[in-house]
Amino acid sequence: MPSAATAARELPEPPGLPAPLPEPTVADLRLEAVLGALSDPLRLRIVRKLLLEREEFDHPCGWLGLDRPKSSLTHHFKALREAGLIRQRQYGLERRSHVRVGDLDARFPGLLGLVADWTPDGP
Amino acid sequence: MPSAATAARELPEPPGLPAPLPEPTVADLRLEAVLGALSDPLRLRIVRKLLLEREEFDHPCGWLGLDRPKSSLTHHFKALREAGLIRQRQYGLERRSHVRVGDLDARFPGLLGLVADWTPDGP
Repeated sequence: MPSAATAARELPEPPGLPAPLPEPTVADLRLEAVLGALSDPLRLRIVRKLLLEREEFDHPCGWLGLDRPKSSLTHHFKALREAGLIRQRQYGLERRSHVRVGDLDARFPGLLGLVADWTPDGP
Repeated sequence: MPSAATAARELPEPPGLPAPLPEPTVADLRLEAVLGALSDPLRLRIVRKLLLEREEFDHPCGWLGLDRPKSSLTHHFKALREAGLIRQRQYGLERRSHVRVGDLDARFPGLLGLVADWTPDGP
């Protein structure tokens, strides 16, 4: 197994969080949907950074420092949430996210290791 | 790691095989392309059956018993080959395939275990 995945942590859930936005339950996670969501280099990069560089319980998309229009990022984060890769919560005007590490490790062992070991093609 | 993947075997290569059709080298395999090719339930089913029920070095697509038009199957097998999941050879009028188990295990450890553990949603 790739060892980089061990860097992924489940942080303790702080009290008083907003409810998660709609997402599939663990039982409803589908491999084909998860793989489809990860078949885009930008989405791989989002999940990998949230996985390996997590500093807080949830991160806004601005934290990732991606040079893309906000509407495009909103679309990609929604695709990741609907496939079950990330959990999103609405904090006032801002959505913040984290990777569903425990759920994904339970259903698809090894998957997050592949994401952790991935590197973008270009610089 | 899913144990079903241990059923995957690399059969010895018989002498006098036709050359493989064009495919990415091991070094050129890209995770996003491999995951994209596997994001379709039919393609997951193809790879899983070739992986777990292999009886010969290469199998024609008719061996899989899929109830789809030949043109559709040709398209899906080509997508799998171009992503690097299967190796295809032309035997006279027929193309036959096997999963690139060694190459995929080397580059993406755990991936074929996820495919082996997958089950179609419906009956």
